Amino acid sequence: MKSYQEMSKEELLQEQESLRAAYRAYQERGLSLDMSRGKPSAEQLELSMPMMDVLSSQTPLVSRDGLDCRNYGALDGLPEAKELLADMVGCKADNVIIYGNSSLNVMYDFISRSFTHGVMGSTPWCKLEKVKFLCPVPGYDRHFSITESFGIEMINIPMSPEGPDMDMVEKLVNGDEAVKGIWCVPKYSNPQGISYSDETVRRFAALKPAAADFRIYWDNAYCVHHLYDDAQDQLLDIFAECEKTGSSNMVYEFLSTSKISFAGAGLAAVAASADNLADIKKQLTNQSIGFDKINQLRHVLFFKDADGIAAHMKKHAASMRPKFEMILTMFDHDLKGRGVGSWCTPKGGYFITYETIEGCAKSVVQMAKEAGVVMTPAGAPFPYGKDPKDAVIRISPTYPSIADLKLATEIFIDCVKLATVEKLLEQYA
Amino acid sequence: MKSYQEMSKEELLQEQESLRAAYRAYQERGLSLDMSRGKPSAEQLELSMPMMDVLSSQTPLVSRDGLDCRNYGALDGLPEAKELLADMVGCKADNVIIYGNSSLNVMYDFISRSFTHGVMGSTPWCKLEKVKFLCPVPGYDRHFSITESFGIEMINIPMSPEGPDMDMVEKLVNGDEAVKGIWCVPKYSNPQGISYSDETVRRFAALKPAAADFRIYWDNAYCVHHLYDDAQDQLLDIFAECEKTGSSNMVYEFLSTSKISFAGAGLAAVAASADNLADIKKQLTNQSIGFDKINQLRHVLFFKDADGIAAHMKKHAASMRPKFEMILTMFDHDLKGRGVGSWCTPKGGYFITYETIEGCAKSVVQMAKEAGVVMTPAGAPFPYGKDPKDAVIRISPTYPSIADLKLATEIFIDCVKLATVEKLLEQYA
Repeated sequence: MKSYQEMSKEELLQEQESLRAAYRAYQERGLSLDMSRGKPSAEQLELSMPMMDVLSSQTPLVSRDGLDCRNYGALDGLPEAKELLADMVGCKADNVIIYGNSSLNVMYDFISRSFTHGVMGSTPWCKLEKVKFLCPVPGYDRHFSITESFGIEMINIPMSPEGPDMDMVEKLVNGDEAVKGIWCVPKYSNPQGISYSDETVRRFAALKPAAADFRIYWDNAYCVHHLYDDAQDQLLDIFAECEKTGSSNMVYEFLSTSKISFAGAGLAAVAASADNLADIKKQLTNQSIGFDKINQLRHVLFFKDADGIAAHMKKHAASMRPKFEMILTMFDHDLKGRGVGSWCTPKGGYFITYETIEGCAKSVVQMAKEAGVVMTPAGAPFPYGKDPKDAVIRISPTYPSIADLKLATEIFIDCVKLATVEKLLEQYA
Repeated sequence: MKSYQEMSKEELLQEQESLRAAYRAYQERGLSLDMSRGKPSAEQLELSMPMMDVLSSQTPLVSRDGLDCRNYGALDGLPEAKELLADMVGCKADNVIIYGNSSLNVMYDFISRSFTHGVMGSTPWCKLEKVKFLCPVPGYDRHFSITESFGIEMINIPMSPEGPDMDMVEKLVNGDEAVKGIWCVPKYSNPQGISYSDETVRRFAALKPAAADFRIYWDNAYCVHHLYDDAQDQLLDIFAECEKTGSSNMVYEFLSTSKISFAGAGLAAVAASADNLADIKKQLTNQSIGFDKINQLRHVLFFKDADGIAAHMKKHAASMRPKFEMILTMFDHDLKGRGVGSWCTPKGGYFITYETIEGCAKSVVQMAKEAGVVMTPAGAPFPYGKDPKDAVIRISPTYPSIADLKLATEIFIDCVKLATVEKLLEQYA
């Protein structure tokens, strides 16, 4: 089949007409489909329902060291909850704090604390002329919203299949004292599903920041979110690498069970060095008397250990995999070789990233919307919502039913083709 | 019986000797008792255990408007949870946001947001030379820790049985633009158990702050925490009063079920005007995708409505009342008319406040500690931990068993007498 780039004006016009006819037919159906947010499906949520039975009025709500989980106390979490999340990610339980239900909230809180109180004795960022954050792109829109809300200048760092462009990261981090942090989703990244290579993790650990209060915001949101049993990405433990380079204070790692147990009713956690933990706890003591230990106990009793989490994640994968595979098969079948862009084939995480030819993402998303398919807004995976090439579209396959997803993908494919054709026709205008 | 002030030096020395003998006897028992923190007892926590049965794997975890509580969404809380907490305190459900497990965390967050982002468009407090907060004293130590941690200057406002000294409050709030807030526990205050009079609430509502971003931090932590069925304090609804004076934007009201259901595993909430809510939500959108709605649902199904909460609080009262009454009876019996200080007789809340003669609180707390009774540190109920008269001691009767509490109170009484005698003997030194 010819790519659109090889077509004559007449062929493109003919193609446009047939794509438009299909598009109008979709529009007339008055559909309402959603591929916009990384939410687990009802089927996935059902997997965790037995968790609602592990505690009852007959269960002693007591931690293994005898603490009454119904009362105040244990500001940094139950020891067994720390162990569960540490084992899940492969760090030490002593380096973990268990928080409430939202790791996003914790990340906001870390930026906010740095802003008001500084980092391990540094000048609070609110007293500085300029604070900069590096943002590997495409990335997670909610990360960027946090830094934007604090007026922090965000600098785009291109992603490659190995992770962020480390030449650029090293130059900026090691050379500019105003650079205070970098947002990373190191495994099955949001939205590309890229896992950082060993080389990338080692270069992170070897950074020599100009700013003593520079921190890597290592949001390991998808650490156990594999789609395949036999083809799992492996991520080096950043703390193990930092120990070798003496830079353990440089990393805050964020964890969450929102996409393991229940979205918004799971556990969030932070892993960090002893020095960082002491700094964090100094403020935490003023912030809270403690987080929900009953929910911590519930998670511990349900999952038992990291193996329990891994077994549970296989069930999630079994539910999610057909959705990812269907979309990718449809893309292969309908879009491959047509010169309409490219896409990632992730082995885990929650997203598929589609990259149109330059200048088409917004129009694809707009067209899809007008045909009843809500996508994540074009530009969202970039700081300030600005995709310099207007090309990246984040697709979230998990939430819709497979039937809805099939229809939504058909419409998306039509929109991609149509937007491409119309872009190419501009040269004749 | 003679008061100590009426005694001669010789009589005081004799009294000292007999008190010291009793004190040494307590010391020799190697006790470990705790009257330091406002924690519910295990018996009280048992009252809420049936809450652990209202949800199971067979329960549809769906809100009344059809929202799946296991998934993301409903940033400001379930409508039925808003209704429950609004009805509990007598405000409108539309004015409520349901948060996570800790109202203290929410209060910290409000100060922090004002610091970094300002209040409804005002200059962020971090950009100001000076920010001041009014602190009715004695008050809640954790309030003061928050403002202290932000470097906010705290000004003591004396409490009377009517509430804070409103002449002073009016003068400072209406006259000084640097005064941005006041910490209030308006009902069964921490630690005195004082409820603000109607006149006081009305004067609050009638404030004309010099600063547009002045806010009353109305921590209604003990709104339904009556000790007696037939002798309940009534607090005017501050929002109703503010509506009359057109000052609804002046108040943030904080609520919590930590001492209703489970301490640290309940619901926190804020009630505020529509303008304030819009301002709060602008930032909340960047902070979180939402709080734990499963726990919201659990609370709604367990309590059902405000009557359900009131009925539940009667059970708490039945458990707490004998402890309060025992201490007060012992004080009446052993301390009345001895010139050793005074105490409050609260009708609700979590504390009894004892006021020694000037200059004795620290030594009483220290003596009690050395005899195995932990009290809240003297000074804690004051900003910067400084009680100008060194007289106020906060007693928390709820957590210990009645037997432990009896013994602890006996020791406390001995320490109060001994400290007083030794203070009076200083004049002969």
